[in-house]
Amino acid sequence: MATPVKKMLNTYPADLGGLGQEAMARCIEECIACAQACTACADACLSEGMVGDPTKCIRTDMDCADICTATAAVLSRHTGYDADITRAMLQACATACKAWPDECASHADMHEHCRVCAEACRLCEQACNELRATLG
Amino acid sequence: MATPVKKMLNTYPADLGGLGQEAMARCIEECIACAQACTACADACLSEGMVGDPTKCIRTDMDCADICTATAAVLSRHTGYDADITRAMLQACATACKAWPDECASHADMHEHCRVCAEACRLCEQACNELRATLG
Amino acid sequence: MATPVKKMLNTYPADLGGLGQEAMARCIEECIACAQACTACADACLSEGMVGDPTKCIRTDMDCADICTATAAVLSRHTGYDADITRAMLQACATACKAWPDECASHADMHEHCRVCAEACRLCEQACNELRATLG
Amino acid sequence: MATPVKKMLNTYPADLGGLGQEAMARCIEECIACAQACTACADACLSEGMVGDPTKCIRTDMDCADICTATAAVLSRHTGYDADITRAMLQACATACKAWPDECASHADMHEHCRVCAEACRLCEQACNELRATLG
Repeated sequence: MATPVKKMLNTYPADLGGLGQEAMARCIEECIACAQACTACADACLSEGMVGDPTKCIRTDMDCADICTATAAVLSRHTGYDADITRAMLQACATACKAWPDECASHADMHEHCRVCAEACRLCEQACNELRATLG
Repeated sequence: MATPVKKMLNTYPADLGGLGQEAMARCIEECIACAQACTACADACLSEGMVGDPTKCIRTDMDCADICTATAAVLSRHTGYDADITRAMLQACATACKAWPDECASHADMHEHCRVCAEACRLCEQACNELRATLG
Repeated sequence: MATPVKKMLNTYPADLGGLGQEAMARCIEECIACAQACTACADACLSEGMVGDPTKCIRTDMDCADICTATAAVLSRHTGYDADITRAMLQACATACKAWPDECASHADMHEHCRVCAEACRLCEQACNELRATLG
Repeated sequence: MATPVKKMLNTYPADLGGLGQEAMARCIEECIACAQACTACADACLSEGMVGDPTKCIRTDMDCADICTATAAVLSRHTGYDADITRAMLQACATACKAWPDECASHADMHEHCRVCAEACRLCEQACNELRATLG
């Protein structure tokens, strides 16, 4: 099924500037999925009380959600494209997505929601890195 | 396939407070899809130049994207739930989603991206209203 | 000193649509101040561990930050103004700002950061209500 | 007057991790001022019609607003601090803030709101670079 992300890319009336449409669509989808998972995971960790000391996990979740949301918005715009901004945000997003599962390995053993979120982060980091590799 | 939204809801360790899980998952998914579609549509309208005077369309797109993003975040949290905040945001989100297609009917005739975005808004408005109806 | 908020309002090239410029500027300023205070307060509460059970406080902080940020963005746009969207967001923002200090009264006794944040919420709620009263 | 930003920093209950409090407070303040100015400038440009072709200006404004908002949120959190994430976001934010006035020099001659916004971007870029220089 074509998601709205792909449908919107397909209907963009001008040129996408040489960026791969498949890699772009996937990256937008992973960014919005990861932002949602991180917001939900911070909340789920909060509801656990202090089991396993989730402090750093919650904080990184919140950063990752904010950064993924901003990255998805930047990637959803094609008009007046600036490769430097896109590259810097993909770098920041991959950094945040990577920080989280590194931190959270012990939680992922403990909390199922951390496991689901770590997978969303992993997919998002990969999609950011792959899209960045296609930039000139 | 279970999306991360549903997986995250399934792994929430505490009680969801009587809110319907299906309606909640659908509403979160429609909010994040609509936010992305509106961001992309504002950008696509911008690239059209002034064809069909997209000014109000672009502005409402931007509001709708910001409000849908905030609503998705509020709905993704279940800990320390406050029905008044959820109700007010669902109301604001449905209002923004409804304003856009009303405005944009003429653009939707003209621009394919407006048609895709109008459908995302319609689904999101419907999901917000259905979830709101389940609140006490 | 004229803040950028007021300077930007002063340079808006078209008509502000009858909305009071002073009430508007103040409301935007309180929304962005409150969003920042709530983000910082959630983080400060998190660093306290579970002293005084800050769970609901942290969650409401996060909602309030997201809603204030979206409200500030909606209020910063004047082109293609839609009173229904503005009214609904001011309602949601005042609801979130009010929920927080109600919840947090006991924390404010305990934590200085909650006291500062409660004051930011109070000013933001007041500004939202005053601006809403000027809408037709 | 102590802004809420400084008051919140002053009441943070744990250690700020060696980051300069003055540089941090200034950077948060410039980020939230710049985000608001960029949102308002995109809207003001939109209301001008196509005078001076503001297309790229509007798009970069929108990116810059999203990135500044995310950066302000990341900088407002101190618990579980990760220097790599902070550094990458300061880099992305400075890149976006720099792109805008470069693009917009001709608009700034034409539109007063672009002049105010360019100054907010310049101050934000400077504050991001100064804070980044203090990171290890």
